[in-house]
Amino acid sequence: MFGKDRYKIHPAEFASAIDSMSFDHALLSFMELPYDTQVSVFSYLNVLLQHKLVRSLSPQRAGYLLNHLSSDDRTVFFSGLSVSERSKYISYLDEKNKKSTQDFLGYPKNSIAWHIDTNFTVLSKDMTIAEASAHLRAFQKDTEAANVIYVADEAGKLLDDIQVRRLVLNVPTMKISEIMDGSFVSLNVTDTKETAIHKFKAYDRVVMPVINDDNLLLGVITIDDIMDIAEQKDTSDIQKFGGVEDLDYPYVKTGFFTLTRKRATWLVILFLGEMLTATAMGHFEAEISKAVVLALFVPLIISSGGNSGSQAATLIIRALALKELTLKDWWFVMRREIFSGFTLGMILGSIGFLRISLWQYLHWFNYGEHWALIATTVFCSLVGIVMWGTLSGSMIPIVLKKCKIDPATSSAPFVATLVDVTGLVIYFSIAAVILKGTLL
Amino acid sequence: MFGKDRYKIHPAEFASAIDSMSFDHALLSFMELPYDTQVSVFSYLNVLLQHKLVRSLSPQRAGYLLNHLSSDDRTVFFSGLSVSERSKYISYLDEKNKKSTQDFLGYPKNSIAWHIDTNFTVLSKDMTIAEASAHLRAFQKDTEAANVIYVADEAGKLLDDIQVRRLVLNVPTMKISEIMDGSFVSLNVTDTKETAIHKFKAYDRVVMPVINDDNLLLGVITIDDIMDIAEQKDTSDIQKFGGVEDLDYPYVKTGFFTLTRKRATWLVILFLGEMLTATAMGHFEAEISKAVVLALFVPLIISSGGNSGSQAATLIIRALALKELTLKDWWFVMRREIFSGFTLGMILGSIGFLRISLWQYLHWFNYGEHWALIATTVFCSLVGIVMWGTLSGSMIPIVLKKCKIDPATSSAPFVATLVDVTGLVIYFSIAAVILKGTLL
Repeated sequence: MFGKDRYKIHPAEFASAIDSMSFDHALLSFMELPYDTQVSVFSYLNVLLQHKLVRSLSPQRAGYLLNHLSSDDRTVFFSGLSVSERSKYISYLDEKNKKSTQDFLGYPKNSIAWHIDTNFTVLSKDMTIAEASAHLRAFQKDTEAANVIYVADEAGKLLDDIQVRRLVLNVPTMKISEIMDGSFVSLNVTDTKETAIHKFKAYDRVVMPVINDDNLLLGVITIDDIMDIAEQKDTSDIQKFGGVEDLDYPYVKTGFFTLTRKRATWLVILFLGEMLTATAMGHFEAEISKAVVLALFVPLIISSGGNSGSQAATLIIRALALKELTLKDWWFVMRREIFSGFTLGMILGSIGFLRISLWQYLHWFNYGEHWALIATTVFCSLVGIVMWGTLSGSMIPIVLKKCKIDPATSSAPFVATLVDVTGLVIYFSIAAVILKGTLL
Repeated sequence: MFGKDRYKIHPAEFASAIDSMSFDHALLSFMELPYDTQVSVFSYLNVLLQHKLVRSLSPQRAGYLLNHLSSDDRTVFFSGLSVSERSKYISYLDEKNKKSTQDFLGYPKNSIAWHIDTNFTVLSKDMTIAEASAHLRAFQKDTEAANVIYVADEAGKLLDDIQVRRLVLNVPTMKISEIMDGSFVSLNVTDTKETAIHKFKAYDRVVMPVINDDNLLLGVITIDDIMDIAEQKDTSDIQKFGGVEDLDYPYVKTGFFTLTRKRATWLVILFLGEMLTATAMGHFEAEISKAVVLALFVPLIISSGGNSGSQAATLIIRALALKELTLKDWWFVMRREIFSGFTLGMILGSIGFLRISLWQYLHWFNYGEHWALIATTVFCSLVGIVMWGTLSGSMIPIVLKKCKIDPATSSAPFVATLVDVTGLVIYFSIAAVILKGTLL
């Protein structure tokens, strides 16, 4: 369908074209491609479409495809399959690929193992650059993983990594040992994805070797995978902030029922929590009947607590995710947030006080003879609730992290709900003290 | 302070060590380094510390440092300075660097121009690989930008990009024209950062050339900068979601007053918006006096609208940012969110109805003889408000994007505030209809 110029199109563009077609059309276009082009286009497709395509291919063609994928793409392909499909398609692999795929799938989802590319060539430090280049021409595939090459001793222990450009930028008669800098940065196969993202950024690398505890080189991770992982992690954090269980696939690819279920879960939890506001309000029903005017400010006051709590939670969760803050900074954060909360509470409280006084003065609304006491109640409540919101919003993520729970779980709506309930208690308690003997 | 092994430490590690010292100590440690090491360590420091260091160095040393930075690091260094400091330090640069820095600073903050690295070598397609390698050894610095080399015609127009590994993986007697694939992906100097992030990811590149409208090669952008840009963008989006003006520096590096001011801005805007709830409630004061029981459910009902609105806004804003959704999908989103909102509203409404009935039945609370009507009011209000929240949350980001405003501005608290005010009106209007003649 792309005419005779099809093979000039970048595989990424071909993949996104296929992605936008109906499945039947996509399958036909894909099957028309030469086998090798199929492999490169396939690696750019989203994993849902990959599964659908493989189910429609003959075992021979599916086997060719799966065996020729890079090992990281292969592991990700298998990770999304059901158990029965997984064993079916694993039987299509040759012995070497079967073993490495099963090995990598054995690691937990949050480890980097699924993204290891085993296509790397190891050099000896006694080679000259010319010998090394000849060796690479014979054994190394032309992929992103080849941007860095590795030097290991006879036992396979990693000695150094060398950017492939250094083979070009140094004269061919030099020895590999002369262009080694003796310092390399590596990942351990059990490292988490966050560690990998952090290391790639800290050291500005494009490829990083992955070793096991014995310092044996298992494979490499390339930065394009790290970019994708970082983006997925941010998406998941953002969705959790917004009070949605993280979707595993993009919004447009997620079915209506999955989407609604993932949203309903948190919404119902928050609703059950928020029901406590009805209980709290019920507790103060007598006060409200005596002074209905108190009810008028309930949404204003509790939402201010919720908003300041969301702000604090957002700042702290992101700073924790970027490792700008660690758990031992809790006291620094707490002091700072108490002062912040106090200042912000004073600002909002003053605006609230002015609002009530002004409306009374201009006869826009009549808060009764005790309007000044009501304004004072609103002022004090706002100071207290904003401080409380700020403090909860900043401390809950730290406490969660301490308990090894992902801090992003304390989403903005979660903090807001918590502060709503407690905020009501603060508001009516302050009212009880200030208005005692007059309105109450 | 690091003893004689200091020069074996990776510059990134040295930089993070310096970053954690008192400034005086940091300055001393930095000055002790050989000039070339200073340059590589400097590029890993955060820009605030870079400014402080340069202010403390002699003009000679500062000049050496600034002239030897890569052009992208130099542009970022200058972009953060005040106008007077900027002209002072620009005078330290040699003519070529002065011109390119001023050129790049002329582009808007959101363009990629500030991150262009001008350290690239251009090859002719008639060279052999051996000749090209010799040329690179003579002229190309050993930096990340050298991972890809460029082929241009005599006029400087870009013909192709070639991964440097291909010079190694092909025999030295081949011509450059034989290893060209004739397809290259490039950025235009006026492209936004989002476009750059998207292209790097779509094409799995580690370096991309930047051209102008005449197809002339201006420089390159490396993926380590793209990683940083993507992270900053996500941080800014997350902070906007949380209702904070985006901080320009990390939480821990932001001063107390800047931090409080950035938070106060949005908090005050939201507070002023939320004041409309007091006005709305005041409007229904008569109804509340007659049926105080209505007030008890106000926080529960409006927060449900706010939470469902936050969820929808979060999903849509992120999907827009990742280009999974475009503006023309608005009708798809709207239909979907109306159904989602209806389903979610029915779920929450039913729980609310059950809660009231159960409490009444178990004599935990007495909602009076008309409890069934109250429960019906709560049910209908929840369906209406959750639908409304979901719809506003999903449509506001799309409308903002249509108006060329960053959709992340419609942060969760903003949507929640909007839904709070309108939710009250929905609630009391439904109550007026259902309870007319009984409670009201």
